[in-house]
Amino acid sequence: MKKLIVGQSGGPTSVINGTLAGVYYEAKKKGFDKVYGMLNGIEGLLQERIIDLDDYFQDKNNLELLKRTPSSFLGTCRFKLGGFEKNEETYEKIFKILDKHSIDSLIYIGGNDSMDTVESLSDYALLKKKKQNFIGVPKTIDNDLPITDHCPGFGSACKYIATTLREIIQDNNCYGDTKPTIAIVEIMGRHAGWLTASSALAKDETCEGVDAIYLPEIPFNIDTFVKETEELLKKKSSIVIAVSEGIKTEDDQFICELTDNNLLVDSFGHKELSGCAEILSKVLKEKLNVKTRAITLSTLQRAAAHLASKTDLEESYHCGMKGADLAYQGQTGKMVYMSRISNNPYKIKYKVFDDIHKIANIEKKIPLEWIDVDNNYVKEELIDYLKPLIQGEVKQIYKDGLPQHISLKK
Amino acid sequence: MKKLIVGQSGGPTSVINGTLAGVYYEAKKKGFDKVYGMLNGIEGLLQERIIDLDDYFQDKNNLELLKRTPSSFLGTCRFKLGGFEKNEETYEKIFKILDKHSIDSLIYIGGNDSMDTVESLSDYALLKKKKQNFIGVPKTIDNDLPITDHCPGFGSACKYIATTLREIIQDNNCYGDTKPTIAIVEIMGRHAGWLTASSALAKDETCEGVDAIYLPEIPFNIDTFVKETEELLKKKSSIVIAVSEGIKTEDDQFICELTDNNLLVDSFGHKELSGCAEILSKVLKEKLNVKTRAITLSTLQRAAAHLASKTDLEESYHCGMKGADLAYQGQTGKMVYMSRISNNPYKIKYKVFDDIHKIANIEKKIPLEWIDVDNNYVKEELIDYLKPLIQGEVKQIYKDGLPQHISLKK
Repeated sequence: MKKLIVGQSGGPTSVINGTLAGVYYEAKKKGFDKVYGMLNGIEGLLQERIIDLDDYFQDKNNLELLKRTPSSFLGTCRFKLGGFEKNEETYEKIFKILDKHSIDSLIYIGGNDSMDTVESLSDYALLKKKKQNFIGVPKTIDNDLPITDHCPGFGSACKYIATTLREIIQDNNCYGDTKPTIAIVEIMGRHAGWLTASSALAKDETCEGVDAIYLPEIPFNIDTFVKETEELLKKKSSIVIAVSEGIKTEDDQFICELTDNNLLVDSFGHKELSGCAEILSKVLKEKLNVKTRAITLSTLQRAAAHLASKTDLEESYHCGMKGADLAYQGQTGKMVYMSRISNNPYKIKYKVFDDIHKIANIEKKIPLEWIDVDNNYVKEELIDYLKPLIQGEVKQIYKDGLPQHISLKK
Repeated sequence: MKKLIVGQSGGPTSVINGTLAGVYYEAKKKGFDKVYGMLNGIEGLLQERIIDLDDYFQDKNNLELLKRTPSSFLGTCRFKLGGFEKNEETYEKIFKILDKHSIDSLIYIGGNDSMDTVESLSDYALLKKKKQNFIGVPKTIDNDLPITDHCPGFGSACKYIATTLREIIQDNNCYGDTKPTIAIVEIMGRHAGWLTASSALAKDETCEGVDAIYLPEIPFNIDTFVKETEELLKKKSSIVIAVSEGIKTEDDQFICELTDNNLLVDSFGHKELSGCAEILSKVLKEKLNVKTRAITLSTLQRAAAHLASKTDLEESYHCGMKGADLAYQGQTGKMVYMSRISNNPYKIKYKVFDDIHKIANIEKKIPLEWIDVDNNYVKEELIDYLKPLIQGEVKQIYKDGLPQHISLKK
C-alpha cells in the first residue's frame, strides 16, 4: 500500500486546482493506493484534517470541474514551519500524523514559503531517518519564483489582465475627444512587476493598448508621473495607465502608503489609504483637472478561472503530474519546474530542481533590460516572453448561464 | 434614396454595439440606401461628425466583431437637448444637418435622457412639419427604465456579476475556518438595486452564494449591518456581502459620502471617500476584528463583453432590428421595448411604446415585495425574473489568446 498526501498553500490562483487534479490523476495512475488531501495546508495537517480524494474525484466529471474551479480546493494557509532546531515538536507531530496514516509521500503546492517547508521536512526526514519523501510543485500569480521559467497560475492572471484592459480601454474611450478621461488600473505584485507588465499584451492591431506602465522595479516620482500624463493628454483624450500596487518612491516609500506630506497634504488626511490607483487618480484630477477613475483588479485577477489560459492550465496540470511521478519514485526535497526551450514554437520541459533552499526568499523581478524606462513601457523581449503563456481558452462547464465549480462543502 | 442615422448615448454596456449591429443589418435589409453613424451622439451630430457605416460593416466579419465589442463603437455623450422653446437654435441646427445629408430617420440608442431627446426631436419635427422621424432603442445596465420588462445590457452585467461572485466566493473561502474573512463587493446602481440583486444568481447546488445583499431600496444602518455581520460570523468563517454603491441611511445620506461623524470619526478623516465597500470594510475590521477586503467591480461590470449573455446580446440585436423596422415604416416618437410573455419557457415580445415622455425621468426600482428585508436577501420572484436574462454564452473571437474587438481608430 503506497499512500500520498497533497496540500495547497499561499495565495490561491485560478489554476492551482489544475495542479491538484494532475497530482491526483498521475498518483492513481502510477500506483498510489490512496491519495489524501490535507485541508488548509500544513496547518490543517497538524490538526489531522485529512480527506480521501477518491471520495471526490473517482468521478471524472468532478476532476474536470476541479480543473475549472479557482482558489484552493483543499483550502490554504500561510504557515511558517521554521527551522527544526527550534520547532522539533511540530516536526515530530507532523511525522507522527503521517505515520499514523501510513503516508509515504507528501506533495506541497505553493510559492516560496511552501518550498521552504518542503525542504525543511525533507531535511528533517533524512536526518531522523524517517521514511517519508517530500516534493514541491510551484504556483503563484506573481511569477516571482526563481529557477522556473514562469510559475503555474501566472499565465491565467496575465490573460485576465490583458482581456480586462482591452475592455477598459474600449470603455474609457467612449467619450472620445469630447471629454478627456484617464483610467488608472491597479494590478497585483508588491515587489515584482510581472503581472503589471502583462497589461502590454492588450495591444495589437485592433487595440491601441495601455498608454503607460509603471512597475515596482523602477522608482516612482509623482511629479514626473503628472508631467508624463500631461504630455499624453496633449496627444490623446482617452488614457489608460497600468500601475503596480507596489510602486514606490526613490526613498522606498510605497505610493499606497503616502499620507499627509507636502505633496498630498490638502487632499489626503487619512492614513489607511485604499491603494495607489486611488491616490494617483485623485492627484491627476487635482493637478490636471480631468475626469479620472481608479480601477483595482483586486482578487479577480487571481480567481478568474472563467478566463484561464489553456496553456497555463495544461502546464499546471503537468507540473502536478510530474510531482506525483517524483513522489512515486521516492525522490525528496525537490521541486518541479519549467524550462523554456524556445519561444516560437513555444516549447517547455518539465524538470526537477534539487536545491530548494535556493528558491525560498528569493524574489525574481523583471530584468531591467526588459523595461523601457524612457517610455514607461516594456520591451519586445518581455512581450515575447509573456505571449505564449496566455494562449488558448479553457472550455468552461456552464449550467444556467454560469460556470460550474466544485467545492468541499457541497 | 432613403437614409438613416444612428447614435449611441449615455453610459456604455457590453452589448450596446449589438443593438448598433441590429440597426445596421436590418436597415440595409429593409432598404435604407445609407446608414450613417453620428459620433458621440447628438453632441457629435451638432458638429456634423458623421460616418458611413458601410465603410466598416459591409464586411460581415466586422459586424460579428462589433457585436462582441464592449462600450459604444460610435462614442457616447451626456447631452441634454432641453425643451425647444428655449433651445430652438440647437433644434434648427440639428435639422439643418439632417437635411444637408438628406437623412430621413434617426435612431437613438440610450437610457432615460436619450429617450427624452427622441421625443423632443419628434415633437419638434411634427410641430415644424419636418420630414424626419425619430425612434428610440433602450439600453442600460442599471435596468431602471420603466415600460420595458428589462433593458438590453442588463443581462450581461448580471452574468458578469454572478460569475465574478462565484469566483470571489471560492477565493474568499481559501482559509476556511482557520481565518474568518469577509469580502464586501460593491456593485453599480446608484438608485435601483437590480444589478446588486443579481448577485443572488451566484447561488446554486455547487455554490453557497453570497451571504447578504444590501440594496438602495432599503434604508441602511451601519450599526445593524455590523450586528448582522457578527451574527453571520457565528455561523460561518467565509462571508461575502454584496452592496449597492447607492445604499443610504434613513436620512437619505449615501454611505459612500459618510465622513467625520461619531461613528467613523477615528477611522476616516477624508471627505472624498472611494466607495461604500471601502468604508464598510474598514468599519467591520475595526468593530469585529476580522480580515476584510473591499472589492469594487467598477466599469468591468458594464464592459465585460467576454462574459456577455447570449440572451442579452440577441435581445439587444433584435431591439436594434425592430428600431430600424420602425424607422423604415416612418413611425416617430416611439421606443422599442420588451414585454415578457412567460418565464418558463422564457419568452418575450418586441413591442413599440408611443408615449416616450413617460419614460424619461422615471426610475424603475425593485418592487419591495421582491425583497427579503429580514434576511438581507431577495425573494424567489426576483431570481425567477433575473435567471432567463443570463442564459447562454457568446462565442468570442480569440486571436493570440485575447478576444478581438473593433474600433473606429483602427
